[in-house]
Amino acid sequence: MDAERWLLPVGIEEILPPQAEVVEGLRRDLLDLYRSWGYELVFPPFIDYLDSLLTGTGHDLDLQTFKLTDQVTGRLLGVRADMTPQVARIDAHQLRRDVPTRLCYLGTVLHSRPDGFAGTRSPLQIGAEIYGHAGPESDVEILRLVMLTLEAAGLGSAYLDLGHVGIFRGLARQAGLQPEDERALFSVLQRKALPEIESLIATLGVAEPAASMLLALAELCGDDALDRAASVLASADLGVREAVDYLRRVADELHCWLPEVPVHFDLAELRGYRYKTGVVFAAFVPGWGQEIARGGRYDDIGRVFGRARPAVGFSADLKGLLRQGAPAAAVVDGAVFAPWSADPALQDEVARLRRAGRRVVTELPGQAVSPARLGCTEQLVCKDGLWVSIPCE
Amino acid sequence: MDAERWLLPVGIEEILPPQAEVVEGLRRDLLDLYRSWGYELVFPPFIDYLDSLLTGTGHDLDLQTFKLTDQVTGRLLGVRADMTPQVARIDAHQLRRDVPTRLCYLGTVLHSRPDGFAGTRSPLQIGAEIYGHAGPESDVEILRLVMLTLEAAGLGSAYLDLGHVGIFRGLARQAGLQPEDERALFSVLQRKALPEIESLIATLGVAEPAASMLLALAELCGDDALDRAASVLASADLGVREAVDYLRRVADELHCWLPEVPVHFDLAELRGYRYKTGVVFAAFVPGWGQEIARGGRYDDIGRVFGRARPAVGFSADLKGLLRQGAPAAAVVDGAVFAPWSADPALQDEVARLRRAGRRVVTELPGQAVSPARLGCTEQLVCKDGLWVSIPCE
Repeated sequence: MDAERWLLPVGIEEILPPQAEVVEGLRRDLLDLYRSWGYELVFPPFIDYLDSLLTGTGHDLDLQTFKLTDQVTGRLLGVRADMTPQVARIDAHQLRRDVPTRLCYLGTVLHSRPDGFAGTRSPLQIGAEIYGHAGPESDVEILRLVMLTLEAAGLGSAYLDLGHVGIFRGLARQAGLQPEDERALFSVLQRKALPEIESLIATLGVAEPAASMLLALAELCGDDALDRAASVLASADLGVREAVDYLRRVADELHCWLPEVPVHFDLAELRGYRYKTGVVFAAFVPGWGQEIARGGRYDDIGRVFGRARPAVGFSADLKGLLRQGAPAAAVVDGAVFAPWSADPALQDEVARLRRAGRRVVTELPGQAVSPARLGCTEQLVCKDGLWVSIPCE
Repeated sequence: MDAERWLLPVGIEEILPPQAEVVEGLRRDLLDLYRSWGYELVFPPFIDYLDSLLTGTGHDLDLQTFKLTDQVTGRLLGVRADMTPQVARIDAHQLRRDVPTRLCYLGTVLHSRPDGFAGTRSPLQIGAEIYGHAGPESDVEILRLVMLTLEAAGLGSAYLDLGHVGIFRGLARQAGLQPEDERALFSVLQRKALPEIESLIATLGVAEPAASMLLALAELCGDDALDRAASVLASADLGVREAVDYLRRVADELHCWLPEVPVHFDLAELRGYRYKTGVVFAAFVPGWGQEIARGGRYDDIGRVFGRARPAVGFSADLKGLLRQGAPAAAVVDGAVFAPWSADPALQDEVARLRRAGRRVVTELPGQAVSPARLGCTEQLVCKDGLWVSIPCE
């Protein structure tokens, strides 16, 4: 039994010294970055009524959400598995502003099942969002913050994947697909299984030209996907062509602001398609198959809270950034050892060093260990009535 | 339904701007303070196996702990309701050092029922602990950190309540009480209901001199309690008298280090008596009936994790400190408004301001709101080819 008591559940991590200092350092760097861009910090609650957490978010998040019974009310609570719906509620219901609002957040979310390669169930979610502005400029501001976030974590060589859920949505509408058929087609499209897609389109009896365009969508990926889209989707409805044009504007703005960042297009990639409404994106780093940050536009997310505003944002797992990145190492300044003494002159010097940001470890009588074993590189000694630091032996 | 979607569960709080900045500011100040005293940061996991969370902690914490079923293993998980047992496990099992170890932590804990006057169920628990040293010096170091923590939150006029669970434990042993009788007596002693205590002692058939001393214990509180204890408990067993002497040594050290802090003694007050083993304390602020920080010595806490080391520590609710305190207000430096333009000279100036810690809010084309409504007090304008800040109109 004793041997089991310290085992952690699968996918649940504790962070020990000195790694905890690294996490804390990156946490502060990122929140300071977002603050300097005018993003206001919010701390959504860790648990919430389940219907408030899940409204409008779809089945996947429901499966990922730990459920609890509220002993006070008997109602069902959930542990947040994603903070975006909570932040949307804060914008829609609590702040109720009519000007563009930039919000950022950071906190642990829990997933009932391990996901992705890293297999974590407790990501430290960090994110930033703009409410109240529709247009490529806010999309691009968010994408710039994504790249700065990755840079802060030492992930300077990331690339972006861009798509737009309006293209598939519009084609599905043009094809007259019922919601359940749209979901089935979405599902095979994500796997890019061409024969399956072709056979499903035939089974559903989709007429031309929508059938050909839906089939072609699976192959509209790569650097030149936007150029090919213009001709491949030429006979699509206005909404589809507008989505392609919008994506082109985002790509052009992005090239203007971040000319050095490689951008791939994938018009069939529909991350978070259940609540996204426009541009969707993900950031990748070489040698790691999984996205390291993700986001997009979800203009309707506030509707269930009584107030739909345009919205775009991103999120990432801070611990995931650290696993893949090479952030600045924790400052490993050696500590200063102070003997146990109430001498006011010593206490003044100790207080001065601490105010200056040094770590000062006080002797505990009877401890019988050398200062060096306590991580100290210097020690305070009294010379001619003055307390001075000398190197530890 | 819509009106209900944004309601938070009872005792669960979200933190909005600008209050979130205040919380973040105090969070950093306190972690920096503990770091400067040589305390290493740890982040224990948010959920854990239930038996790991509750081992050796008693019934109260069990009641306060939200339970979850692990879908991966079918085992019972708990959401942490207190971080001290987790930190004890980290010291005993993960760090396994044989030198004194100072650890600090900060994080949300959840309680299944609202507790205390504030009625929160989601305290932001902050704390610091010393493992591996037994003696009044480590008790006093922790008490000094308590006072500095309160000072950082603007609570400079706090006072301390001190006790020692060894006194009651020793008297109960001397009286030959069975564990369940000891618990019953503990319970009435907490209410200081003298007639009840007297009748229970009689019912239990406690012999003299233990009976008189247990009854007298309820009145051993106040500034002179330690002085009176010497005569009142003169015929107590050695362990009891040693506990009184130990408490006297802590009080003397405390007076040496913190002469200005009022100290009250209460030898019958046994906070956390189930896992405390020595000195227990609480800090109070005038005008608030409830303790604002608490702690004590719990030398045995690591035993269940295979390694008992002396341990002393404290914890507090950071949000509670803010409710009662008057911390430095959030820095409300006005933001700088930058027009939407890719002009490299403008971008250089924006980057410079952000690096210098200013908040710069970029225009989003079409937003049609004045910079002042976005919280900006200055705006960047181009004068003779140079971008300069001028006050907003």
